[in-house]
Amino acid sequence: MNQVIETILNHRSIRNYKDQALPEEHLALLVQCAQKAPSSNNGQPVTIIAVTDKTKKAQLAELCGNQPYIAEAGVFFVFCIDFYRGKLACEKTNNEFCITDEFTATVIGTFDAGLAMQNMIVAAESLGYGTVPIGGILNDPQAVISLLEIPAYVFPICGLVVGYPKDYSQVKPRLPLKAVFNRDKYDPNQKTYIDEYDEVMAEYMAERTNGESRRNWSETISRVYRSKGRRNIKQAMENQKFYNH
Amino acid sequence: MNQVIETILNHRSIRNYKDQALPEEHLALLVQCAQKAPSSNNGQPVTIIAVTDKTKKAQLAELCGNQPYIAEAGVFFVFCIDFYRGKLACEKTNNEFCITDEFTATVIGTFDAGLAMQNMIVAAESLGYGTVPIGGILNDPQAVISLLEIPAYVFPICGLVVGYPKDYSQVKPRLPLKAVFNRDKYDPNQKTYIDEYDEVMAEYMAERTNGESRRNWSETISRVYRSKGRRNIKQAMENQKFYNH
Repeated sequence: MNQVIETILNHRSIRNYKDQALPEEHLALLVQCAQKAPSSNNGQPVTIIAVTDKTKKAQLAELCGNQPYIAEAGVFFVFCIDFYRGKLACEKTNNEFCITDEFTATVIGTFDAGLAMQNMIVAAESLGYGTVPIGGILNDPQAVISLLEIPAYVFPICGLVVGYPKDYSQVKPRLPLKAVFNRDKYDPNQKTYIDEYDEVMAEYMAERTNGESRRNWSETISRVYRSKGRRNIKQAMENQKFYNH
Repeated sequence: MNQVIETILNHRSIRNYKDQALPEEHLALLVQCAQKAPSSNNGQPVTIIAVTDKTKKAQLAELCGNQPYIAEAGVFFVFCIDFYRGKLACEKTNNEFCITDEFTATVIGTFDAGLAMQNMIVAAESLGYGTVPIGGILNDPQAVISLLEIPAYVFPICGLVVGYPKDYSQVKPRLPLKAVFNRDKYDPNQKTYIDEYDEVMAEYMAERTNGESRRNWSETISRVYRSKGRRNIKQAMENQKFYNH
C-alpha cells in the first residue's frame, strides 16, 4: 500500500470547512494536477475557474441549492467543458468547426472533465484538504454562466469545493466490489449485491443516526431516480452551442 | 512534492506493452480504487468490466479501431455507465424509475465514470503500470454491448488499457496553465494562449520526428473537431434506454 492508494481509499466527502484561503501556489498546483489528466485526442477541453471572491462564492452557494460550505471553504472550482479553444484552433487553420454540432463533444467533454476533477481531488486530499463535488452547479446553469462570464462552446459541468476540513466525516461503505468489478462480461446478478449492500447501509445509517433511521441504499437512491433529474441542462447547453442531437 | 502529486504530474499515455497478465489482487485493487471516487447522490452508476480473455481483448482491439495494445496489454477495463442497479432499487421500493428518461443520467453517469477512471489511472501508475484511455470503444457501441452482454440501462463509455510498459513515451506538453486556470470568471484571452502552445507543440513535434513535422496543436485538433464526431453514440444509448432528449 503506497501513499497514492492510501489517499484514494481514505476518501470521504467533507461538508464542514474552516473559513480559510488556500495558498496561491496550491491553487495553481491543484489545477496543474487536474490538467495532467488524459484527454480525448489531446483536445484538453476543460477549463477550471477558481472562485475565491467571497461575493461570488456566496452567490454560487445559493445557486447550487443553498450549500453553505461552497461559501465557507477556501475555494470553489468550477469545472467547465471547453470547446471554445477548439473553435479558435479551427478558425486559425481555416477549418470548419463541427464537433459541437452533435452529441460527441458533450460526451467527451463531460468525461474528460471527470478525469480532470478526480486528479484534483486526489492531489488535494494528499495535501490534507477536504473536498466535495457539487452537481448542484447544474441547478441553474444559465445563472452560473452569466455570473462567471462563460462564453459559447463552454459549459460548467460540475463544481468542487476544496478547503481546510473542520471535521472528518466517516468513510461511507460502497457497493460490494463484485457488483462493480465484472469479468469478461456484465454480471447480471446485481439484485443479490444490492440486497447485500442495503443491509450494510441500513446498519451504517442506524449507527450514524443513533438508531433513528435505517434507510438503505435502495430507499435513498430511488428517491432520486424516480425523478427525471434536472430539466434545464440540455437547453442551457444549447444556448452555449452544444447541440446534443 | 509527495508521491501522489509526483505520480499525477509524471503521467503519459503508454501504447507499447508486454504481453503479461496482472496479478489478480491488483485487478481487484484497481477497481476498488476506481469505486472509491465520489458519485452523484452516492448513486455509484459505474460498472467496470475487466477483460482479460484473449479472444475478447483481440475482438475489442479491432472494434476500437485496430489499436493492437488493447490485445497486448494485461487487461482492458471497460467502464460502463450503470443505471440498471438504480432501476432494481426502484423496483424493490415500488418507485417509478425515470432518471434515464431524459438527459441528466447521461451527464451524471459519464462524469462519474470519468472520476472513477482517473482514480484507477493514478493508482495503476503508482504501482508502475502504464495506462491509456480508449475512446474508440464508442466507434461501435452496439458491438461492444453484444460482446460483453451489457443489459439495458448500462452503456460502455470508455475503455482503459493497463499493463506492463515496454517503453515510456515522453510527457507531452500541455496548454499553458493560465489557459485552463481562470480566476473568478472565464478568461477570454484564449487566442494568445493557443498561439503560445502552438509554438511549444511545433518544437515538441520537430524533436519527436527529427524535424520531419512541426505540426502544432491547432493543426492537430482542428482535424478532429472539423468532424461532427461519432454519429452512432446517441442511437446506441437509446437502444440501452438512455433517452437524451
